[in-house]
Amino acid sequence: DRQRKHYICTTFQKFGSNVGGGWVEAQNSRGTVGLVPEDYIEVKTILIISFVFDLTSLYRALDEIRKLCGIIFSSVYSFDEEWDDDSDDGKSTGGYGGSQVEEGGTMQRAGGHSTMKLSLNKFPGFSKTPNPEVYLLTKHIAKGDERLPIYTGEVGPVWLYPQTQLDCVVADPKKGSKMYGLKSYIEYQVTPNTTNRPVNHRYKHFDWLYERLVEKFACALPIPCLPDKQVTGRFEEEFIKMRMERLQGWMSRMCRHPVISNSEVFQLFLNYRDEKEWKLGKRRAEKDEIVGVKIFSNIDPELPELDPAQVEQKYEMYSQFTRSMDNSVKELLAVGHLHWKRCTGPLQKEYRQIGKAFQNLSSVFNTSAYPRESTLTEALTATGKTYEEIAEIVAEQPKKDLHFLMETNLEYKGLLGCFPDTITVHKAAIDKVKEADHLVVMNKISQQDKLIMEKNLSTMSYALQAEMNHFHSNRIYDYNRLMQFYLEEQVKFYETVSDGIPVCTDTINIEYGSL
Amino acid sequence: DRQRKHYICTTFQKFGSNVGGGWVEAQNSRGTVGLVPEDYIEVKTILIISFVFDLTSLYRALDEIRKLCGIIFSSVYSFDEEWDDDSDDGKSTGGYGGSQVEEGGTMQRAGGHSTMKLSLNKFPGFSKTPNPEVYLLTKHIAKGDERLPIYTGEVGPVWLYPQTQLDCVVADPKKGSKMYGLKSYIEYQVTPNTTNRPVNHRYKHFDWLYERLVEKFACALPIPCLPDKQVTGRFEEEFIKMRMERLQGWMSRMCRHPVISNSEVFQLFLNYRDEKEWKLGKRRAEKDEIVGVKIFSNIDPELPELDPAQVEQKYEMYSQFTRSMDNSVKELLAVGHLHWKRCTGPLQKEYRQIGKAFQNLSSVFNTSAYPRESTLTEALTATGKTYEEIAEIVAEQPKKDLHFLMETNLEYKGLLGCFPDTITVHKAAIDKVKEADHLVVMNKISQQDKLIMEKNLSTMSYALQAEMNHFHSNRIYDYNRLMQFYLEEQVKFYETVSDGIPVCTDTINIEYGSL
Repeated sequence: DRQRKHYICTTFQKFGSNVGGGWVEAQNSRGTVGLVPEDYIEVKTILIISFVFDLTSLYRALDEIRKLCGIIFSSVYSFDEEWDDDSDDGKSTGGYGGSQVEEGGTMQRAGGHSTMKLSLNKFPGFSKTPNPEVYLLTKHIAKGDERLPIYTGEVGPVWLYPQTQLDCVVADPKKGSKMYGLKSYIEYQVTPNTTNRPVNHRYKHFDWLYERLVEKFACALPIPCLPDKQVTGRFEEEFIKMRMERLQGWMSRMCRHPVISNSEVFQLFLNYRDEKEWKLGKRRAEKDEIVGVKIFSNIDPELPELDPAQVEQKYEMYSQFTRSMDNSVKELLAVGHLHWKRCTGPLQKEYRQIGKAFQNLSSVFNTSAYPRESTLTEALTATGKTYEEIAEIVAEQPKKDLHFLMETNLEYKGLLGCFPDTITVHKAAIDKVKEADHLVVMNKISQQDKLIMEKNLSTMSYALQAEMNHFHSNRIYDYNRLMQFYLEEQVKFYETVSDGIPVCTDTINIEYGSL
Repeated sequence: DRQRKHYICTTFQKFGSNVGGGWVEAQNSRGTVGLVPEDYIEVKTILIISFVFDLTSLYRALDEIRKLCGIIFSSVYSFDEEWDDDSDDGKSTGGYGGSQVEEGGTMQRAGGHSTMKLSLNKFPGFSKTPNPEVYLLTKHIAKGDERLPIYTGEVGPVWLYPQTQLDCVVADPKKGSKMYGLKSYIEYQVTPNTTNRPVNHRYKHFDWLYERLVEKFACALPIPCLPDKQVTGRFEEEFIKMRMERLQGWMSRMCRHPVISNSEVFQLFLNYRDEKEWKLGKRRAEKDEIVGVKIFSNIDPELPELDPAQVEQKYEMYSQFTRSMDNSVKELLAVGHLHWKRCTGPLQKEYRQIGKAFQNLSSVFNTSAYPRESTLTEALTATGKTYEEIAEIVAEQPKKDLHFLMETNLEYKGLLGCFPDTITVHKAAIDKVKEADHLVVMNKISQQDKLIMEKNLSTMSYALQAEMNHFHSNRIYDYNRLMQFYLEEQVKFYETVSDGIPVCTDTINIEYGSL
C-alpha cells in the first residue's frame, strides 16, 4: 500500500513507455523513475475523481481527466490492450450488504464502490443529460442492417423479436495469470445456443461490452449494470460462483433483448473466432458513430404518428411506474436482507440454544438413578437434536429461497436504476418540442422543422413504449417464476421441519396409586 | 408514595388500636398521629428487613421484629382476621419476565418481589437452619392419625399413596369487596373430587395454607411456592386467568402429594362447611405443635435401618440432582423467554413487513396498464396476505405451546428452589451424627444416644428418599405430558403455516418470440 502511494501522480505526462508484461515506466512526484504496474495507473485516476464532490467542478475535472486519460490510454494501450479492471479496490460484500440494498444506482454499478469513471469518461452523451436537439431537428430515414423496426403486438408497440430466442451459458470459470505470474484472473466460458461454440471472457470483457452497450443504446434502452466488482475473496469459490451466476443472469437478460442481442457488438462478444477477430471487432465497436441519441435515427415505427400530448402521457405513466417499482423492490430487498440476517444469526442461535437446553435436561434426568427414566430422556434428547437440526435448516433456508428472491430483485433494482437516465432523455425531448411553437414564432425554426420534431418525438415514444412492453413481459415472466419457486421452497421448508419433529406417542401414564 | 413514607416506623409500639374497616391508628417518626391502612404496616416491616444484609445481624433483627410483630399482629388481627395480602406492591410481570427466570428462589415466592417475611416470621424453624439435634436425640414411636408410614415400592422407599387420587378444580373467579367498597378482591371456587362440594377461597387463604404447610412440612417436604402476587392488572381478565391457572397447578400438585393431601390443614381447606368451621380449623392449625423438624417423629419407615454412610451417599446424590435440574430448568426458561419475545416481537414484525412488501409490489404492478398482469398480482397479493397471517400465527404460537412449557418449568423452578432448604436440614443431621462418636468419647452423650441418633437419621433419610421418589415419578409424568403436548403443537404450527402458503401452479410461460 505504501508502495502504491508513490504512484499517485497528477502529472500524467510523466508516464513513459510500456516496457511489456504489464509494466509502465513512470516518474513520481519526487522525480524518482521506476516501473509501475499499468493497472495501478487507472486505480489512481479513480481515486482522484472520487475526491471531487461538487457537480460543476466534477464535470470540469472530468473533462480535464478525460483529455489526460486520452494521452495515457493511447500511450499505454497502444502496446497492450489488456488493461485490467478486476484490480480496483473493494471490500467483499458476501450476502446482501446494507449499502447494496439501500443505495440507488443511476447509471452506476449496483455495488457500494462503483464509480462514474467509465460511463462519464467513455460515454460522451452522459457527461450531462444527452441533448436530443440535433436528433429532433433532423429528418431520418432508417435503413440497412441497423434499422430497428417497431410493430403493433398484442400488448401495443413491440420490438421485432427473433424467430429463435438467443441464449447463452456462462460456465466453467478458470484461473489464468499474466504479468509473469504476478496477476491472476478468472476466465469464464460463454457458450451461445446459436453456435454452441464456447468463447472465453474475463470480467473486464463483460465490462467492456457493458460500456459499448451503454454508449450505443442507453438513451433508448436501460442497460442493466454488471454485478459489482470485488477484490477481497476474488478467488474464493463462493465469490466466483456468485459472480458467474450474476454474469449469467446479465447475459441472459441481454440475450432476451431483441435489439441488444441482434447488435454487432453483442454478436462479436458471443461469436468471435480468434484473437484477431476479437481485437478488430473491438476497435470497430469503439469507433461506432451511432451512439447516444443518434440511436433513435435507426428506429422505424411502422405505426401512426403520436401527438406530443400522447407522448407526454405515456412518459408520465412509465416514469411513475418505474419509480414506484423501484421503491417497492428496494423495500422487498431491505426486508429480505433483514430476514436473511435473522435466520442465519439470532434465530439459528436460538434454536441451537433450545436444542441444547432440552439435551441438558435429558442429561440431568439420566443421572437420577430412577428406574423409569429412559422413555422421557430419549424423547428429550430427540427433541433437542431436532431443534439443533431446525437451527441448521433455518440458517440454510435463505440460500434456498431468499437467495433467488434477492437475486431477482437485485437485478431489477439495477435495471430500474437505469430508467431515470433513459427517461430523462425523453423528458428533454418533450420539453424541446413544447418550445417549438415559440421557436417558430421567433423564426428560429420553420413550421416544417416543428413537424419533423414532432415526428421524431413520436419515434422516440414508440421506442420507449416498445422497451416498456419488453420490460413488462420480462417482469411478469421473472416474477411469476420467482413466486412459484419461492413459495414451493417455503412449503418444502415448513414440511421438512414438521416432518422432523419427533412425536412422543408413548407417554408413560403413571398411576400415582400404584407406586 | 410520599404519604406511605410517613409510615416507615421503627418504633412499632406507636401503632395504636384497630379502628375497623382496615385502618389502624399510628404515629410517625415526627410524632404525627393518623390512620394507617393496616396493610401498609406489613409492607413497611418488609422494607426494614430488606435493608439488613449481614446474616448474623439479620437473624438478630428478625428475632426482634418477630417479637414486635407478635404485638402488632395480636393487636390488629384480634379485631379482623382478614388481613389482605393481595395488596402488596408489585409490578405486572405479564409473560415471563427476566427476573422471574433468572432469580433463584430459596423458600421465596417465585416472583421478583417476594420477601422472606412470612417464612421467617411465621415459621420458627427457619429463622436459621432448623436444628435437628433435639429430634435426633429423642426416641420416637410414631402412632395415631399423624403417623406417616414409608414402604418399599417398585422404585424404592415410597410414601403410602391413597387408593383414590385426590384432586380439585379451581374455577369461577368472582369479584368481591370489603372496607366499605374501598378494597376489592377475587374469590375462587375450589371443588375437591371427594365431596364435589365447592368452597370459596381468596388468594390470601391459599397463602395462609401455604404458610401452614411450610411450617409443618418444609423440613421433610419441599413446599412449592404459590404463584407470585401482583397489584397491577389484578382485575384484568388475563391476569385473573393466569393466577387461577397457576393456583390450579399448585393445588393439583398438593393434592397429588400423599402426605400433604392427607393432612388436617389441607383437608380443612378443601372441605370446611361454614365460616365457623373454617375459623376454628384455622386457629387449630395455627396452634399445631408438630412443626419444623418435629415432623420427622411422625415418620415410620417399615424398612431396615440405614447406616450413616448410606444416608450421606443418598443425600449427596439428591443434592447434586436437584441442583443440576435447577440449572437446567432455568436454562430452558431463559431460552424459552427469549424465544417468546422474538416470536411476539421482531419475528412477527418481520413477517408483517414481508407481507406488506409483497402486497405493495402487487399494487405497483397493478398500475402498469399492461394486459397480462392479473395472475401475477393475484399471486403476489395472496403471498403478501399469507405472510401477514404467518406473522399472526407466529406471534400466537407461544401461547399455544411455549406457555405450557414455561408454566411447567416455572413450577419446577419454584419446587427446586425449595429443595436446598429441605436438604440443608438433612445435611445438618448428618453432620450431627458424624460428631456423635466424638461426643460419646467426651461423655456428652451415651452410646445409646448415638444409636438413637443413627436410627433417627435413617428415618429422616427414608423420608427424603420417599420424597425424592415422589418427585421423580411426578417429574417424569409432568415432563412426558409436556413433551407430548409441546411437540404436537409444534407439528401443528409448521403444518398450519405450510398449508397456508399459496402455490402458484399457473405460472404464465411467456413465449418471447410471440409478442
